[in-house]
Amino acid sequence: MNINLKKVSIIGDETKAYKFIEELMGKNPVFVCTIASTKTAMVPGITVAGASPEIVKYTPPADAELIYYGECKCISGIPATPDGKPTPAIITLSALRLANIPLFIVDAGCEVKPHIPYISIGIPSPGDNIKNGKALDRDVVEKAMNYAEIIGKNFAKIADYLVLGESIPAGTTTALGVLMSLGIDARGKVSSSMPDNPHEIKNKVVEEGMKVAGIKIGSLKDDPIGAISTLGDPMMVSVVGMTLGAAQKIPVILAGGTQMAAIVALISRIRSDILRNVAIGTTKYIVEDKTSNIGWLINQSASIPIFGADPGLSESKKEGLKAYAYGFVREGVGAGGATLAAMLKSNGKITTDMIRDEIEKNYEKIVESRLKSYIHKYLHND
Amino acid sequence: MNINLKKVSIIGDETKAYKFIEELMGKNPVFVCTIASTKTAMVPGITVAGASPEIVKYTPPADAELIYYGECKCISGIPATPDGKPTPAIITLSALRLANIPLFIVDAGCEVKPHIPYISIGIPSPGDNIKNGKALDRDVVEKAMNYAEIIGKNFAKIADYLVLGESIPAGTTTALGVLMSLGIDARGKVSSSMPDNPHEIKNKVVEEGMKVAGIKIGSLKDDPIGAISTLGDPMMVSVVGMTLGAAQKIPVILAGGTQMAAIVALISRIRSDILRNVAIGTTKYIVEDKTSNIGWLINQSASIPIFGADPGLSESKKEGLKAYAYGFVREGVGAGGATLAAMLKSNGKITTDMIRDEIEKNYEKIVESRLKSYIHKYLHND
Repeated sequence: MNINLKKVSIIGDETKAYKFIEELMGKNPVFVCTIASTKTAMVPGITVAGASPEIVKYTPPADAELIYYGECKCISGIPATPDGKPTPAIITLSALRLANIPLFIVDAGCEVKPHIPYISIGIPSPGDNIKNGKALDRDVVEKAMNYAEIIGKNFAKIADYLVLGESIPAGTTTALGVLMSLGIDARGKVSSSMPDNPHEIKNKVVEEGMKVAGIKIGSLKDDPIGAISTLGDPMMVSVVGMTLGAAQKIPVILAGGTQMAAIVALISRIRSDILRNVAIGTTKYIVEDKTSNIGWLINQSASIPIFGADPGLSESKKEGLKAYAYGFVREGVGAGGATLAAMLKSNGKITTDMIRDEIEKNYEKIVESRLKSYIHKYLHND
Repeated sequence: MNINLKKVSIIGDETKAYKFIEELMGKNPVFVCTIASTKTAMVPGITVAGASPEIVKYTPPADAELIYYGECKCISGIPATPDGKPTPAIITLSALRLANIPLFIVDAGCEVKPHIPYISIGIPSPGDNIKNGKALDRDVVEKAMNYAEIIGKNFAKIADYLVLGESIPAGTTTALGVLMSLGIDARGKVSSSMPDNPHEIKNKVVEEGMKVAGIKIGSLKDDPIGAISTLGDPMMVSVVGMTLGAAQKIPVILAGGTQMAAIVALISRIRSDILRNVAIGTTKYIVEDKTSNIGWLINQSASIPIFGADPGLSESKKEGLKAYAYGFVREGVGAGGATLAAMLKSNGKITTDMIRDEIEKNYEKIVESRLKSYIHKYLHND
C-alpha cells in the first residue's frame, strides 16, 4: 500500500478497513456535496456555522460556491465561526483541486440558493425546527429519497466510488434527534464545531421535539422515514437516498462526522445489506474528539470502517487553521472524506503535508488577502 | 471495427468520421438531456411535439420522465403528435437501457418541472416567443452558460465522452433564428416533426423577430450570446455551455437534428478550436430528410462528422413507429445520439435489430397496454 496509513486513523476492524481502502487506491471517485437548511439552526447557541445567527442560512450555499469557485458568491468573504475560524470547505476545496476530483452539488432545500449549478431532488424548502416535533412532510421525504436514489444509481455507472459530503448548520442536533427516535441514545456523543460542545442545548431541543411528537427513545426504530420526517433534516434524505442507489454497485464513503451515524442508522433500517459497501471518511479531529464518540455511535448500527484523515492543520502556521486541531470546527462539507479521497486517488502521492500547503495557500488567497485589502482600505479612509 | 457502419450513415469526411467513432468504441459515455421551453411553441402550427397546443409545455418534462422511469409522471400516457406518433424519447429510453448508459437531466427553464431529479443551471423561466425579437436576458444567458460549462467540466472528469440530447418544442424555429442572425441563411433547411415541414410559419416568425429586434441576416455574426438572447432558446445555453466545458478534454456528441447546427454555429463563434472534439449524432431519418439539409447547415460553420444512426423503425411491425421512416417525428430527445452511443458502448454488440426490438417492447408496454386498458375500461363502462 502506497498511502501512509499513519496519517489515517482507523476505528473498527483494521483488516476490513485496509481491504476497503485498498480497493479504492488509484480509482476515480465523484464527490457529491449535499447542501440544505433546517430551521433548527435558529435555536440560540446551537451552531457556530456562521459568523452570526442571521447569516447561518448563507453557510450551505456559500460552502458550495467556495468548493466550486475557490470563492463565495452569495456572501463576501467565506463562512466562518463568530471568532473567525474558517469553514472546513477550505479543506474540501484544497483536497478536491489537488486530486482533480469531479464535484456535484445536491440542493436538498437550501433557504438561500447557491450561485452554481446544482442537482435538485425536489425538496421545496428547509426542514422545520425539530423542537416542534416535525421536520419534513413524509411524502416529500419519500419522493426526494427516490430522486436521490436515481442520482446515486446513475453516478454508480460512471464513478468508481462516491464520496458524499454535506453542509447543514445544526446537523448534529437533527442527527441526535434521528438517532434517539431510532433507539440509539446519542446524548453527549454527537460532535460540535465548538470546543465546548453545547450538548445541553441539543438534548433539550430533541427532548422537546420528542415530547411534541409524542415519541420516546426508539419509538420510530422500525420507521426510518418517520424518524427523518419527525426529527431529521433534508440533508439526510439526499445522502441516504444516494447511498441506497449507489452502494449496491460501488463503494460509498460517507464524508462527515457524527451526523453520518444518523445516516448509517437510517440505512441499517432500510436496506442493511448495502452497508457492506459503505465506510465513514472523516477527519482525525472527529476521530480524536473527546466531546463526542463517533465509533460508539456508528457501532450501534453496523460494523463499518471509520477513517479519520489528517489534513495536517495541527502543524499549520495559520492560527485560524491550527484551531481545527484544538477542537474548533473539526469537520464539515466532506472535508475529511475529500482529504482521504485525494490521498487514495493519487495512490498516496498527495500527502498530509501537500494538503496542508494547499489549504494554507488557499487560506492566504481567500482569507488573508481580503483582510489585507480591508486594512488597506481602512487606513486610506482614515 | 466491430460496429456495422452500414447502419450508420455518415456525412462529411469519412476518414475523420471513422477515426472519431473508433476512439469511442467500448468507452463509457454519459448521456445528458437538456429540457426547456420557449413560448415560440405557442405559435399555431409551428410544432406537433404534443397532442394539442395546450399540452406542448408538458412534452419536455414528460420526455425526461419517460427516459428515466419508462413512463411519464406529469401526464398520463406519453408525449405524441396529434395523430398519435409517439415521442422519440421511446428510442432514447430503449437505447440507454440496452447499453446501461448513465443519464442526467438538465432543466434549462421548463414551464412545467419534471417529476425527477434534475440539474438546475439557473434559468428561471422559459424562453420568450422570438417573434417579439427577444428570447432571454443577456445576463441570464451568460450566467447559465457558465453554470453549464462547470457541469460539462465535471462530467469530463469521469465520462469518456458526452452525448448531449434535448427536448424543446419549436426548437427548430429558434435554431433558424439563431442561424439567420449569425449569417447562415437556413430558411427551408431546418427539419420538422411533420412530413410537411411548415417552413413558411418558421420563416415568418423569425423574420418578424428580426424586424422587431432591428437586425438582418448576419447582424449578430460576432455576438453569439446576443444571437441566443435575441432569437434563440434556453436549451442552447445549456448545450453550448456543457460542450464548451467538456470538449476541451473529451469528445462530445451533439445528439440532435438540425437544431444542433445552431449549437455548432454558436460554438464556432465562441471557441471554434474545440469543435475538433465534437460530432453530430442523429438519426438516419434526419440525414435522409429531403425537407431539410443538416449537412449543408453544419458545413456553414465547421467540418465535423455527422452520424445518422438507424434505430430500424422502417422495418417495425408497429405503425406508430414505422411512421418515423416516413417523415414523422424523425428525431428528438437525443434519440439518434443515444442509438449511436448504445452501438459504440457495446462495441457493436447492440445492433439496429436489437434496438428496434427493445423499442417495440417498450412501445407495447407503454403505449399499447394503455390503449388496451382504456378499451377494456370503455367496454365495461358501456
